Amino acid sequence: MGNPFKLDLGDYLPYLVNRVGAIIAEQFGEEALAPHGLSIAMWRVMVVLASEANQRQIDLAALTSIDASTLSRLVTRLVRMGLVTRTRSARSNREVAVKLSAKGRALVVRLIPIAREYEAAAIAGVPAEELAVVKRCLRLIYGNMKSRPAPKSGSQQLPPHDRLLA
Amino acid sequence: MGNPFKLDLGDYLPYLVNRVGAIIAEQFGEEALAPHGLSIAMWRVMVVLASEANQRQIDLAALTSIDASTLSRLVTRLVRMGLVTRTRSARSNREVAVKLSAKGRALVVRLIPIAREYEAAAIAGVPAEELAVVKRCLRLIYGNMKSRPAPKSGSQQLPPHDRLLA
Repeated sequence: MGNPFKLDLGDYLPYLVNRVGAIIAEQFGEEALAPHGLSIAMWRVMVVLASEANQRQIDLAALTSIDASTLSRLVTRLVRMGLVTRTRSARSNREVAVKLSAKGRALVVRLIPIAREYEAAAIAGVPAEELAVVKRCLRLIYGNMKSRPAPKSGSQQLPPHDRLLA
Repeated sequence: MGNPFKLDLGDYLPYLVNRVGAIIAEQFGEEALAPHGLSIAMWRVMVVLASEANQRQIDLAALTSIDASTLSRLVTRLVRMGLVTRTRSARSNREVAVKLSAKGRALVVRLIPIAREYEAAAIAGVPAEELAVVKRCLRLIYGNMKSRPAPKSGSQQLPPHDRLLA
C-alpha cells in the first residue's frame, strides 16, 4: 500500500478508469452525439432499443445502467425529439413500453458504426486476450460497487446516509 | 463485429469503462468528498499536491488529467476554501506554484485511507495479475484517445470541427 499519507494517482484504479470513461464519452459525445442533440445516456437508451424492438421502461434502466427516474426523463426527451415512442405495454396496463421510431432507428443505425470506430481507436494495440480480461474485470468491478453496502456509521462518509436514516 | 446495425452495450468497452468510472466517482464523491465541499477533480489536485510539496500549476494539469483552464478555476476554489495556496514560482516569475495549506494537508491525509477503501471494495475478487493488465490497458487506452487525431472531414462528426475551420 506504500505511504499511507500518499496516493499515486497513476496506479489508482478509480482514477485510471474515470479518466478513460470521461475522455471517450467527451470525444464521442461532442463529435458524434451533440450535433444530433443527444447525450451519452440518451444514446445508450437508443442502442438498447435497436437490439430489442420493444422494451419495458423498467428493463431499459437495468440494461443502460441508468436509474429509473433519470431514465424516465430521458425517454420523455427522446419522445419529444421524435426518436422513440412510449406506449402502455401489451402485457400489463401498468407497464410502459418504449421503442424506436423510424427516425430514431435511422439515426441509431448511422451512429453505431461511428461508435465502433471510437472503440477501435481506444483499444488500438490492446491484445484480444487482454481486452477480454479488461472487460471481465470491469463487469466484476461494476457489480462490486453496485452491490456495495452503505458505509458503516462512524466513518467519515456519513452525511448522505444520515439523511436516509433520519 | 456482428450485426452492423446492433451494438451489444454489455460487450462495448466505452460503456463498460464509463459506468465503472461513474459509479465509483458517484459513491466516493457523494459519501466522502461532498461533505467537505470537494469534487472529484478538486480531490485529484489535492492528492497530487500531497505527493509533491510544491507543484507548478501547469504540471498539475498533466498529473490530474484536467485541462489547464479548468484546473486554474479549481485551484482558485481550493484557495478560497483555505486548502491550498498559490504563489509565484521561485524559478520563474511567470510560473504559478501551488501547494497544500496545513488545513488542506490534514484533510487529504484523512481522505486517502478512505479512498483506498473504495478502491479495495471495487477490485475485490480481481486477481493481482489481472488488475495489472487492467491498469496497463487503461493507461494505453487513455493515451490512444488523448493523442487521437481530429476526425477526418466528410464524416458525420463534422459540426464541432466545422466551426474550427470557419
